[in-house]
Amino acid sequence: MLVMRAAFLGPSGTYAEQAALALLGQTVVSTPFGSIQATLRAAAAGEAECAVVPIENSIEGSVPATLDTLWLLPSLQVRTALVLPIRHCLISNESDPAQIKAVYSHPQALAQCQNWLEKHLLAADRLPTASTSEALRYVAPGTAAIASVQAAELHGLPILAHTINDHPDNCTRFWLVSAAPLGDRFREPATYTSIAFSLKANRPGVLYEALTIFALERINLARIESRPTKKVIGEYLFFADLEGANTDKPIARALARLAGIVAELRVFGSYGVVGVVKS
Amino acid sequence: MLVMRAAFLGPSGTYAEQAALALLGQTVVSTPFGSIQATLRAAAAGEAECAVVPIENSIEGSVPATLDTLWLLPSLQVRTALVLPIRHCLISNESDPAQIKAVYSHPQALAQCQNWLEKHLLAADRLPTASTSEALRYVAPGTAAIASVQAAELHGLPILAHTINDHPDNCTRFWLVSAAPLGDRFREPATYTSIAFSLKANRPGVLYEALTIFALERINLARIESRPTKKVIGEYLFFADLEGANTDKPIARALARLAGIVAELRVFGSYGVVGVVKS
Repeated sequence: MLVMRAAFLGPSGTYAEQAALALLGQTVVSTPFGSIQATLRAAAAGEAECAVVPIENSIEGSVPATLDTLWLLPSLQVRTALVLPIRHCLISNESDPAQIKAVYSHPQALAQCQNWLEKHLLAADRLPTASTSEALRYVAPGTAAIASVQAAELHGLPILAHTINDHPDNCTRFWLVSAAPLGDRFREPATYTSIAFSLKANRPGVLYEALTIFALERINLARIESRPTKKVIGEYLFFADLEGANTDKPIARALARLAGIVAELRVFGSYGVVGVVKS
Repeated sequence: MLVMRAAFLGPSGTYAEQAALALLGQTVVSTPFGSIQATLRAAAAGEAECAVVPIENSIEGSVPATLDTLWLLPSLQVRTALVLPIRHCLISNESDPAQIKAVYSHPQALAQCQNWLEKHLLAADRLPTASTSEALRYVAPGTAAIASVQAAELHGLPILAHTINDHPDNCTRFWLVSAAPLGDRFREPATYTSIAFSLKANRPGVLYEALTIFALERINLARIESRPTKKVIGEYLFFADLEGANTDKPIARALARLAGIVAELRVFGSYGVVGVVKS
Protein backbone atom coordinates (compact mmCIF):
# COMPACT_ATOMS: atom_id res chain seq x y z
CA MET A 1 0.00 0.00 0.00
CA LEU A 2 1.28 3.42 -0.86
CA VAL A 3 2.31 5.83 1.83
CA MET A 4 0.01 8.84 1.86
CA ARG A 5 0.61 12.38 3.07
CA ALA A 6 -2.35 13.41 5.24
CA ALA A 7 -2.77 17.02 6.35
CA PHE A 8 -4.31 17.71 9.77
CA LEU A 9 -4.47 20.42 12.45
CA GLY A 10 -1.26 20.13 14.46
CA PRO A 11 1.04 20.00 16.22
CA SER A 12 1.38 16.25 16.70
CA GLY A 13 -0.93 14.85 19.39
CA THR A 14 -4.24 16.42 18.30
CA TYR A 15 -7.49 14.48 17.98
CA ALA A 16 -7.28 15.16 14.22
CA GLU A 17 -4.00 13.23 14.11
CA GLN A 18 -5.65 10.36 16.04
CA ALA A 19 -8.42 10.35 13.44
CA ALA A 20 -5.89 10.32 10.57
CA LEU A 21 -4.03 7.39 12.15
CA ALA A 22 -7.28 5.50 12.79
CA LEU A 23 -8.31 5.98 9.15
CA LEU A 24 -4.98 5.47 7.43
CA GLY A 25 -2.93 3.42 9.90
CA GLN A 26 0.79 3.15 9.41
CA THR A 27 0.55 4.13 5.76
CA VAL A 28 0.18 7.79 6.66
CA VAL A 29 2.86 10.45 6.73
CA SER A 30 1.05 12.95 8.86
CA THR A 31 1.66 16.59 8.07
CA PRO A 32 0.56 19.05 10.75
CA PHE A 33 -0.71 22.53 9.84
CA GLY A 34 -1.45 25.55 12.03
CA SER A 35 -5.12 25.95 11.10
CA ILE A 36 -8.00 24.01 9.55
CA GLN A 37 -7.97 26.45 6.62
CA ALA A 38 -4.29 25.71 5.90
CA THR A 39 -4.95 21.96 6.23
CA LEU A 40 -7.68 22.01 3.59
CA ARG A 41 -5.80 24.36 1.27
CA ALA A 42 -2.81 21.96 1.36
CA ALA A 43 -5.03 19.10 0.19
CA ALA A 44 -6.61 21.24 -2.53
CA ALA A 45 -3.19 22.40 -3.77
CA GLY A 46 -1.74 18.89 -3.84
CA GLU A 47 0.79 19.52 -1.05
CA ALA A 48 -0.90 16.59 0.71
CA GLU A 49 -2.91 13.70 -0.81
CA CYS A 50 -5.70 14.20 1.69
CA ALA A 51 -6.79 16.19 4.74
CA VAL A 52 -8.51 14.92 7.88
CA VAL A 53 -10.69 17.65 9.41
CA PRO A 54 -13.28 17.83 12.21
CA ILE A 55 -16.77 18.54 10.88
CA GLU A 56 -18.91 18.36 14.03
CA ASN A 57 -18.61 17.74 17.75
CA SER A 58 -21.50 16.22 19.70
CA ILE A 59 -21.31 18.99 22.33
CA GLU A 60 -20.05 22.10 20.58
CA GLY A 61 -21.70 21.53 17.21
CA SER A 62 -20.39 22.10 13.72
CA VAL A 63 -16.89 23.41 13.04
CA PRO A 64 -17.41 26.66 11.09
CA ALA A 65 -13.83 26.81 9.77
CA THR A 66 -14.27 23.43 8.07
CA LEU A 67 -17.65 24.25 6.51
CA ASP A 68 -16.63 27.71 5.31
CA THR A 69 -13.33 26.54 3.79
CA LEU A 70 -14.84 23.49 2.03
CA TRP A 71 -17.40 25.79 0.37
CA LEU A 72 -14.48 27.74 -1.14
CA LEU A 73 -12.53 24.66 -2.33
CA PRO A 74 -14.77 22.80 -4.81
CA SER A 75 -12.03 20.36 -5.86
CA LEU A 76 -12.15 18.55 -2.50
CA GLN A 77 -14.46 15.54 -2.11
CA VAL A 78 -15.35 13.64 1.05
CA ARG A 79 -13.95 10.08 0.85
CA THR A 80 -14.95 8.72 4.25
CA ALA A 81 -16.12 9.79 7.71
CA LEU A 82 -15.12 8.64 11.18
CA VAL A 83 -16.59 9.27 14.64
CA LEU A 84 -13.88 9.59 17.29
CA PRO A 85 -14.72 9.50 21.03
CA ILE A 86 -13.16 12.48 22.81
CA ARG A 87 -11.71 11.88 26.28
CA HIS A 88 -10.05 14.99 27.68
CA CYS A 89 -7.37 14.77 30.41
CA LEU A 90 -5.95 17.39 32.73
CA ILE A 91 -2.20 17.35 32.16
CA SER A 92 0.15 19.01 34.64
CA ASN A 93 3.36 18.60 36.58
CA GLU A 94 1.51 19.83 39.68
CA SER A 95 0.18 17.05 41.90
CA ASP A 96 -1.97 19.48 43.94
CA PRO A 97 -4.80 21.05 41.87
CA ALA A 98 -4.79 24.06 44.23
CA GLN A 99 -1.43 25.07 42.77
CA ILE A 100 -2.85 25.37 39.24
CA LYS A 101 -3.45 29.02 38.37
CA ALA A 102 -4.01 28.68 34.60
CA VAL A 103 -5.43 26.00 32.27
CA TYR A 104 -4.58 26.07 28.55
CA SER A 105 -6.49 24.36 25.75
CA HIS A 106 -8.39 24.85 22.50
CA PRO A 107 -11.56 26.90 23.17
CA GLN A 108 -13.78 23.91 22.19
CA ALA A 109 -12.00 21.66 24.74
CA LEU A 110 -12.27 24.35 27.45
CA ALA A 111 -15.99 24.64 26.66
CA GLN A 112 -16.42 20.85 26.81
CA CYS A 113 -14.91 20.74 30.34
CA GLN A 114 -16.45 23.91 31.78
CA ASN A 115 -18.50 22.24 34.55
CA TRP A 116 -15.50 20.17 35.65
CA LEU A 117 -13.29 23.28 35.69
CA GLU A 118 -15.87 25.26 37.70
CA LYS A 119 -16.04 22.45 40.24
CA HIS A 120 -12.33 21.63 40.56
CA LEU A 121 -10.33 24.62 39.32
CA LEU A 122 -12.63 27.59 39.82
CA ALA A 123 -9.85 30.07 40.49
CA ALA A 124 -7.67 29.08 37.53
CA ASP A 125 -7.64 31.26 34.42
CA ARG A 126 -8.74 29.50 31.22
CA LEU A 127 -6.46 30.42 28.36
CA PRO A 128 -7.22 29.46 24.76
CA THR A 129 -4.69 27.92 22.34
CA ALA A 130 -4.85 27.07 18.63
CA SER A 131 -5.18 23.29 19.27
CA THR A 132 -5.29 20.90 22.22
CA SER A 133 -1.76 19.63 21.68
CA GLU A 134 -0.49 23.21 21.28
CA ALA A 135 -1.65 23.71 24.91
CA LEU A 136 1.04 21.26 26.12
CA ARG A 137 3.71 23.81 25.20
CA TYR A 138 2.43 25.98 28.04
CA VAL A 139 2.66 23.32 30.77
CA ALA A 140 4.92 24.84 33.44
CA PRO A 141 4.87 25.20 37.24
CA GLY A 142 1.42 26.47 38.23
CA THR A 143 -0.25 25.62 34.89
CA ALA A 144 -2.10 22.71 33.26
CA ALA A 145 -3.33 21.75 29.79
CA ILE A 146 -6.41 19.88 28.55
CA ALA A 147 -5.63 17.38 25.79
CA SER A 148 -5.77 13.66 24.97
CA VAL A 149 -3.98 10.75 26.69
CA GLN A 150 -1.93 10.38 23.49
CA ALA A 151 -0.78 14.00 23.62
CA ALA A 152 0.30 13.62 27.27
CA GLU A 153 2.27 10.46 26.43
CA LEU A 154 3.88 12.11 23.40
CA HIS A 155 5.20 14.93 25.58
CA GLY A 156 6.00 12.66 28.56
CA LEU A 157 3.75 14.72 30.84
CA PRO A 158 1.72 13.37 33.78
CA ILE A 159 -2.09 13.09 33.71
CA LEU A 160 -3.69 14.57 36.82
CA ALA A 161 -7.31 13.65 35.94
CA HIS A 162 -8.86 11.42 33.25
CA THR A 163 -12.09 11.98 31.24
CA ILE A 164 -12.84 15.45 32.55
CA ASN A 165 -15.27 16.28 29.70
CA ASP A 166 -18.68 17.18 31.14
CA HIS A 167 -20.57 14.89 28.76
CA PRO A 168 -19.19 11.34 28.74
CA ASP A 169 -20.54 10.71 25.21
CA ASN A 170 -18.42 13.51 23.76
CA CYS A 171 -17.34 12.57 20.24
CA THR A 172 -16.22 14.34 17.07
CA ARG A 173 -17.00 13.41 13.47
CA PHE A 174 -14.08 13.81 11.07
CA TRP A 175 -14.08 13.87 7.27
CA LEU A 176 -11.23 12.65 5.12
CA VAL A 177 -11.24 14.79 1.97
CA SER A 178 -9.03 14.73 -1.12
CA ALA A 179 -8.82 16.28 -4.57
CA ALA A 180 -7.91 13.05 -6.42
CA PRO A 181 -9.80 9.75 -5.88
CA LEU A 182 -8.09 7.41 -3.40
CA GLY A 183 -8.79 4.15 -5.26
CA ASP A 184 -10.29 1.31 -3.26
CA ARG A 185 -8.83 2.38 0.05
CA PHE A 186 -12.24 3.05 1.64
CA ARG A 187 -14.57 0.20 0.76
CA GLU A 188 -17.50 1.00 3.07
CA PRO A 189 -20.64 1.41 0.95
CA ALA A 190 -21.71 5.05 0.62
CA THR A 191 -24.42 5.80 3.17
CA TYR A 192 -24.31 9.61 3.22
CA THR A 193 -24.28 12.33 0.59
CA SER A 194 -23.19 15.75 1.83
CA ILE A 195 -24.17 18.91 0.02
CA ALA A 196 -24.25 22.67 0.46
CA PHE A 197 -26.32 25.27 -1.33
CA SER A 198 -26.83 29.02 -1.40
CA LEU A 199 -30.25 30.55 -1.93
CA LYS A 200 -31.22 33.04 -4.61
CA ALA A 201 -31.67 36.51 -3.14
CA ASN A 202 -35.12 37.44 -1.83
CA ARG A 203 -36.34 33.85 -1.93
CA PRO A 204 -36.95 33.06 1.75
CA GLY A 205 -39.31 30.18 0.88
CA VAL A 206 -36.63 28.31 -1.04
CA LEU A 207 -35.35 26.43 2.03
CA TYR A 208 -38.85 25.02 2.45
CA GLU A 209 -38.95 24.16 -1.28
CA ALA A 210 -35.61 22.37 -0.92
CA LEU A 211 -36.84 20.34 2.05
CA THR A 212 -40.03 19.52 0.13
CA ILE A 213 -37.93 17.98 -2.65
CA PHE A 214 -36.23 15.69 -0.14
CA ALA A 215 -39.50 14.86 1.63
CA LEU A 216 -41.22 13.89 -1.65
CA GLU A 217 -38.32 11.54 -2.44
CA ARG A 218 -38.47 10.19 1.16
CA ILE A 219 -34.83 11.16 1.77
CA ASN A 220 -33.89 11.65 5.41
CA LEU A 221 -31.71 14.61 6.34
CA ALA A 222 -29.24 13.50 9.00
CA ARG A 223 -28.18 17.10 9.56
CA ILE A 224 -28.92 20.58 8.28
CA GLU A 225 -26.82 23.57 9.22
CA SER A 226 -26.79 27.20 8.15
CA ARG A 227 -23.76 29.45 7.75
CA PRO A 228 -23.74 33.14 6.87
CA THR A 229 -22.82 34.02 3.27
CA LYS A 230 -20.46 36.66 4.75
CA LYS A 231 -22.09 39.22 2.47
CA VAL A 232 -25.32 40.42 4.07
CA ILE A 233 -26.57 39.58 7.57
CA GLY A 234 -29.56 37.28 7.13
CA GLU A 235 -28.24 35.53 3.98
CA TYR A 236 -27.17 31.93 4.45
CA LEU A 237 -25.58 28.89 2.94
CA PHE A 238 -27.09 25.56 4.00
CA PHE A 239 -25.06 22.41 4.62
CA ALA A 240 -26.98 19.12 4.64
CA ASP A 241 -26.13 15.43 5.06
CA LEU A 242 -28.59 13.20 3.16
CA GLU A 243 -29.00 9.54 4.06
CA GLY A 244 -28.06 7.51 0.97
CA ALA A 245 -25.63 7.50 -1.97
CA ASN A 246 -25.80 9.96 -4.84
CA THR A 247 -26.07 6.98 -7.19
CA ASP A 248 -29.45 6.13 -5.56
CA LYS A 249 -32.19 7.27 -7.92
CA PRO A 250 -34.16 9.33 -5.34
CA ILE A 251 -31.04 11.28 -4.35
CA ALA A 252 -29.95 11.77 -7.97
CA ARG A 253 -33.45 13.06 -8.86
CA ALA A 254 -33.59 15.32 -5.78
CA LEU A 255 -30.18 16.85 -6.51
CA ALA A 256 -31.18 17.56 -10.13
CA ARG A 257 -34.36 19.34 -8.97
CA LEU A 258 -32.52 21.18 -6.20
CA ALA A 259 -29.99 22.55 -8.71
CA GLY A 260 -32.90 24.25 -10.47
CA ILE A 261 -34.04 26.32 -7.48
CA VAL A 262 -30.85 27.28 -5.64
CA ALA A 263 -28.19 29.84 -6.57
CA GLU A 264 -25.29 27.41 -6.21
CA LEU A 265 -25.19 23.71 -5.32
CA ARG A 266 -22.08 21.90 -4.13
CA VAL A 267 -22.01 18.09 -3.75
CA PHE A 268 -19.17 17.19 -1.39
CA GLY A 269 -19.52 13.52 -2.27
CA SER A 270 -21.05 10.22 -1.17
CA TYR A 271 -19.17 8.23 1.42
CA GLY A 272 -19.35 5.56 4.08
CA VAL A 273 -18.66 5.93 7.78
CA VAL A 274 -15.84 3.99 9.42
CA GLY A 275 -17.23 2.58 12.69
CA VAL A 276 -16.67 4.49 15.92
CA VAL A 277 -13.11 3.82 17.09
CA LYS A 278 -12.14 3.53 20.72
CA SER A 279 -9.75 6.25 21.80
CA MET B 1 -36.35 57.10 33.56
CA LEU B 2 -35.01 54.53 35.96
CA VAL B 3 -31.38 53.52 35.89
CA MET B 4 -31.00 49.91 34.79
CA ARG B 5 -28.25 47.41 35.47
CA ALA B 6 -27.32 45.73 32.15
CA ALA B 7 -25.03 42.70 32.11
CA PHE B 8 -22.65 42.26 29.15
CA LEU B 9 -19.41 40.50 28.21
CA GLY B 10 -16.60 42.62 29.58
CA PRO B 11 -14.27 44.16 30.41
CA SER B 12 -15.38 47.68 29.49
CA GLY B 13 -14.83 48.51 25.81
CA THR B 14 -16.41 45.45 24.17
CA TYR B 15 -18.88 45.65 21.28
CA ALA B 16 -21.49 44.24 23.70
CA GLU B 17 -21.01 47.32 25.89
CA GLN B 18 -21.43 49.53 22.80
CA ALA B 19 -24.68 47.70 22.03
CA ALA B 20 -25.90 48.15 25.62
CA LEU B 21 -25.14 51.88 25.51
CA ALA B 22 -26.83 52.25 22.10
CA LEU B 23 -29.96 50.50 23.42
CA LEU B 24 -30.14 52.00 26.90
CA GLY B 25 -28.20 55.26 26.65
CA GLN B 26 -27.12 57.03 29.79
CA THR B 27 -29.70 55.19 31.90
CA VAL B 28 -27.53 52.09 31.99
CA VAL B 29 -25.21 50.96 34.75
CA SER B 30 -23.19 48.50 32.75
CA THR B 31 -21.99 45.41 34.58
CA PRO B 32 -19.24 43.45 32.82
CA PHE B 33 -18.98 39.66 33.17
CA GLY B 34 -16.26 37.25 32.11
CA SER B 35 -18.36 35.07 29.81
CA ILE B 36 -21.66 35.12 27.90
CA GLN B 37 -22.93 32.32 30.15
CA ALA B 38 -22.28 34.39 33.29
CA THR B 39 -23.91 37.43 31.65
CA LEU B 40 -27.15 35.55 30.95
CA ARG B 41 -27.17 33.78 34.32
CA ALA B 42 -26.90 37.19 36.07
CA ALA B 43 -30.00 38.42 34.22
CA ALA B 44 -31.90 35.20 35.02
CA ALA B 45 -30.94 35.40 38.70
CA GLY B 46 -31.92 39.07 39.03
CA GLU B 47 -28.35 40.29 39.66
CA ALA B 48 -28.93 42.51 36.61
CA GLU B 49 -32.24 43.77 35.16
CA CYS B 50 -31.21 42.72 31.66
CA ALA B 51 -28.38 41.27 29.60
CA VAL B 52 -27.15 42.37 26.17
CA VAL B 53 -25.67 39.42 24.27
CA PRO B 54 -24.45 38.81 20.70
CA ILE B 55 -26.67 36.35 18.85
CA GLU B 56 -25.15 36.34 15.35
CA ASN B 57 -22.32 37.90 13.37
CA SER B 58 -22.65 38.41 9.62
CA ILE B 59 -19.27 36.73 8.99
CA GLU B 60 -18.79 34.16 11.73
CA GLY B 61 -22.43 33.12 12.15
CA SER B 62 -24.39 32.36 15.27
CA VAL B 63 -22.88 32.59 18.73
CA PRO B 64 -23.23 29.08 20.21
CA ALA B 65 -22.71 30.19 23.83
CA THR B 66 -25.73 32.52 23.58
CA LEU B 67 -28.04 29.95 21.96
CA ASP B 68 -27.05 27.11 24.30
CA THR B 69 -27.39 29.20 27.47
CA LEU B 70 -30.74 30.75 26.49
CA TRP B 71 -32.14 27.25 25.95
CA LEU B 72 -31.27 26.46 29.59
CA LEU B 73 -32.73 29.71 31.04
CA PRO B 74 -36.45 29.73 30.18
CA SER B 75 -37.19 32.79 32.34
CA LEU B 76 -35.36 35.11 29.93
CA GLN B 77 -37.32 36.81 27.15
CA VAL B 78 -36.01 38.83 24.22
CA ARG B 79 -37.14 42.47 24.56
CA THR B 80 -35.43 44.04 21.54
CA ALA B 81 -32.71 43.45 18.95
CA LEU B 82 -30.03 45.72 17.55
CA VAL B 83 -27.63 45.39 14.61
CA LEU B 84 -24.21 46.93 15.37
CA PRO B 85 -21.62 47.55 12.62
CA ILE B 86 -18.26 46.05 13.61
CA ARG B 87 -15.12 48.02 12.69
CA HIS B 88 -11.98 46.39 14.00
CA CYS B 89 -8.77 48.39 14.56
CA LEU B 90 -5.19 47.29 15.04
CA ILE B 91 -4.09 48.83 18.32
CA SER B 92 -0.40 49.00 19.24
CA ASN B 93 2.32 51.23 20.61
CA GLU B 94 4.56 50.08 17.75
CA SER B 95 4.57 52.44 14.77
CA ASP B 96 6.34 49.87 12.55
CA PRO B 97 4.18 46.79 11.82
CA ALA B 98 7.35 44.73 11.28
CA GLN B 99 8.03 44.99 15.02
CA ILE B 100 4.73 43.27 15.90
CA LYS B 101 5.36 39.63 16.82
CA ALA B 102 1.98 38.79 18.38
CA VAL B 103 -1.63 39.94 17.86
CA TYR B 104 -4.20 39.38 20.62
CA SER B 105 -7.99 39.35 20.23
CA HIS B 106 -11.17 37.34 20.64
CA PRO B 107 -11.09 34.32 18.26
CA GLN B 108 -14.09 35.72 16.29
CA ALA B 109 -12.28 39.03 15.73
CA LEU B 110 -9.06 37.24 14.69
CA ALA B 111 -11.15 35.17 12.24
CA GLN B 112 -12.83 38.32 10.87
CA CYS B 113 -9.43 39.89 10.09
CA GLN B 114 -7.56 36.81 8.86
CA ASN B 115 -6.94 38.01 5.28
CA TRP B 116 -5.68 41.38 6.52
CA LEU B 117 -3.38 39.66 9.05
CA GLU B 118 -2.02 37.29 6.38
CA LYS B 119 -1.27 40.27 4.13
CA HIS B 120 0.20 42.68 6.69
CA LEU B 121 1.34 40.66 9.72
CA LEU B 122 2.03 37.19 8.34
CA ALA B 123 4.82 36.40 10.81
CA ALA B 124 2.94 37.52 13.93
CA ASP B 125 1.41 34.90 16.24
CA ARG B 126 -2.37 35.20 16.68
CA LEU B 127 -3.28 34.73 20.32
CA PRO B 128 -6.89 34.39 21.46
CA THR B 129 -8.41 36.25 24.42
CA ALA B 130 -11.80 36.04 26.16
CA SER B 131 -13.06 39.31 24.60
CA THR B 132 -11.79 42.05 22.27
CA SER B 133 -11.27 44.57 25.06
CA GLU B 134 -9.52 41.90 27.18
CA ALA B 135 -6.90 41.84 24.38
CA LEU B 136 -5.86 45.41 25.23
CA ARG B 137 -4.37 44.16 28.49
CA TYR B 138 -1.70 42.39 26.44
CA VAL B 139 -0.58 45.44 24.46
CA ALA B 140 3.16 45.74 25.15
CA PRO B 141 6.32 46.32 23.10
CA GLY B 142 6.20 43.93 20.12
CA THR B 143 2.47 43.15 20.43
CA ALA B 144 -0.86 44.48 19.14
CA ALA B 145 -4.56 43.96 19.86
CA ILE B 146 -7.63 43.94 17.64
CA ALA B 147 -10.60 45.80 19.15
CA SER B 148 -12.91 48.76 18.56
CA VAL B 149 -12.04 52.47 18.31
CA GLN B 150 -13.91 52.94 21.61
CA ALA B 151 -11.74 50.33 23.35
CA ALA B 152 -8.54 51.99 22.10
CA GLU B 153 -9.76 55.39 23.34
CA LEU B 154 -10.77 53.96 26.71
CA HIS B 155 -7.26 52.63 27.25
CA GLY B 156 -5.53 55.64 25.66
CA LEU B 157 -3.77 53.40 23.13
CA PRO B 158 -2.85 54.38 19.54
CA ILE B 159 -4.63 52.93 16.50
CA LEU B 160 -2.18 51.69 13.87
CA ALA B 161 -4.81 50.68 11.26
CA HIS B 162 -8.56 51.31 10.94
CA THR B 163 -11.29 48.94 9.65
CA ILE B 164 -9.07 45.91 9.20
CA ASN B 165 -12.02 43.46 9.05
CA ASP B 166 -11.92 41.53 5.76
CA HIS B 167 -15.60 42.12 5.01
CA PRO B 168 -16.58 45.81 5.24
CA ASP B 169 -20.23 44.92 5.96
CA ASN B 170 -19.30 43.09 9.16
CA CYS B 171 -22.05 43.52 11.73
CA THR B 172 -23.34 41.73 14.81
CA ARG B 173 -26.92 41.33 15.94
CA PHE B 174 -27.44 41.68 19.70
CA TRP B 175 -30.43 40.71 21.82
CA LEU B 176 -31.48 42.49 24.97
CA VAL B 177 -33.05 39.86 27.26
CA SER B 178 -34.60 40.12 30.69
CA ALA B 179 -36.59 38.04 33.16
CA ALA B 180 -39.08 40.80 34.12
CA PRO B 181 -40.88 42.95 31.51
CA LEU B 182 -39.21 46.32 30.91
CA GLY B 183 -42.40 48.38 30.60
CA ASP B 184 -42.67 50.68 27.61
CA ARG B 185 -38.95 51.19 27.18
CA PHE B 186 -38.83 49.52 23.76
CA ARG B 187 -41.75 50.75 21.67
CA GLU B 188 -40.81 49.33 18.28
CA PRO B 189 -43.64 47.08 17.07
CA ALA B 190 -42.76 43.39 17.29
CA THR B 191 -41.55 42.17 13.91
CA TYR B 192 -39.81 38.93 14.89
CA THR B 193 -40.71 35.95 17.05
CA SER B 194 -37.79 33.75 18.07
CA ILE B 195 -38.26 30.14 19.07
CA ALA B 196 -36.31 26.95 19.68
CA PHE B 197 -37.47 23.36 19.67
CA SER B 198 -36.12 19.89 20.22
CA LEU B 199 -37.32 16.92 18.17
CA LYS B 200 -38.77 13.68 19.49
CA ALA B 201 -36.29 10.82 19.15
CA ASN B 202 -36.34 8.81 15.90
CA ARG B 203 -38.47 11.38 14.11
CA PRO B 204 -36.14 12.68 11.39
CA GLY B 205 -39.06 13.98 9.30
CA VAL B 206 -40.27 16.30 12.04
CA LEU B 207 -38.11 19.22 10.90
CA TYR B 208 -39.86 19.02 7.54
CA GLU B 209 -43.24 18.82 9.32
CA ALA B 210 -42.32 21.91 11.33
CA LEU B 211 -41.36 23.86 8.21
CA THR B 212 -44.59 22.72 6.54
CA ILE B 213 -46.58 24.29 9.38
CA PHE B 214 -44.87 27.63 8.77
CA ALA B 215 -45.20 27.36 4.98
CA LEU B 216 -48.98 26.66 5.22
CA GLU B 217 -49.40 29.77 7.37
CA ARG B 218 -47.18 31.75 4.94
CA ILE B 219 -44.74 32.63 7.72
CA ASN B 220 -41.22 33.52 6.59
CA LEU B 221 -38.27 32.12 8.51
CA ALA B 222 -35.60 34.81 8.71
CA ARG B 223 -33.14 32.28 10.13
CA ILE B 224 -32.96 28.63 11.10
CA GLU B 225 -30.04 27.19 12.99
CA SER B 226 -29.30 23.79 14.49
CA ARG B 227 -27.35 23.06 17.67
CA PRO B 228 -26.44 19.66 19.10
CA THR B 229 -28.53 18.41 22.03
CA LYS B 230 -25.21 17.52 23.73
CA LYS B 231 -26.61 14.03 24.32
CA VAL B 232 -26.18 11.97 21.16
CA ILE B 233 -24.31 13.02 18.00
CA GLY B 234 -26.91 13.60 15.32
CA GLU B 235 -29.62 14.92 17.69
CA TYR B 236 -30.35 18.63 17.39
CA LEU B 237 -32.18 21.58 18.76
CA PHE B 238 -33.42 24.07 16.17
CA PHE B 239 -33.46 27.83 16.67
CA ALA B 240 -35.67 29.86 14.33
CA ASP B 241 -36.58 33.52 13.86
CA LEU B 242 -40.09 33.93 12.42
CA GLU B 243 -41.16 37.15 10.70
CA GLY B 244 -44.11 38.56 12.66
CA ALA B 245 -45.41 38.93 16.21
CA ASN B 246 -46.68 36.02 18.27
CA THR B 247 -49.95 37.92 18.65
CA ASP B 248 -50.47 37.57 14.83
CA LYS B 249 -53.01 34.82 14.23
CA PRO B 250 -50.89 32.79 11.74
CA ILE B 251 -47.94 32.70 14.16
CA ALA B 252 -50.15 31.88 17.15
CA ARG B 253 -51.76 29.01 15.17
CA ALA B 254 -48.40 27.73 13.91
CA LEU B 255 -46.88 27.71 17.41
CA ALA B 256 -49.86 25.80 18.80
CA ARG B 257 -49.52 23.16 16.06
CA LEU B 258 -45.74 23.02 16.44
CA ALA B 259 -46.06 22.33 20.18
CA GLY B 260 -47.96 19.16 19.27
CA ILE B 261 -45.16 17.60 17.20
CA VAL B 262 -41.93 18.61 18.96
CA ALA B 263 -40.45 17.32 22.21
CA GLU B 264 -39.98 20.78 23.71
CA LEU B 265 -40.84 24.25 22.40
CA ARG B 266 -39.37 27.47 23.78
CA VAL B 267 -40.69 30.89 22.68
CA PHE B 268 -38.02 33.49 23.40
CA GLY B 269 -40.47 36.30 22.70
CA SER B 270 -41.65 38.75 20.07
CA TYR B 271 -39.68 41.93 19.64
CA GLY B 272 -38.80 44.81 17.36
CA VAL B 273 -35.40 45.72 15.94
CA VAL B 274 -33.74 49.01 16.78
CA GLY B 275 -32.31 50.43 13.54
CA VAL B 276 -28.67 49.84 12.68
CA VAL B 277 -26.53 52.24 14.71
CA LYS B 278 -23.34 53.82 13.45
CA SER B 279 -20.30 52.71 15.41
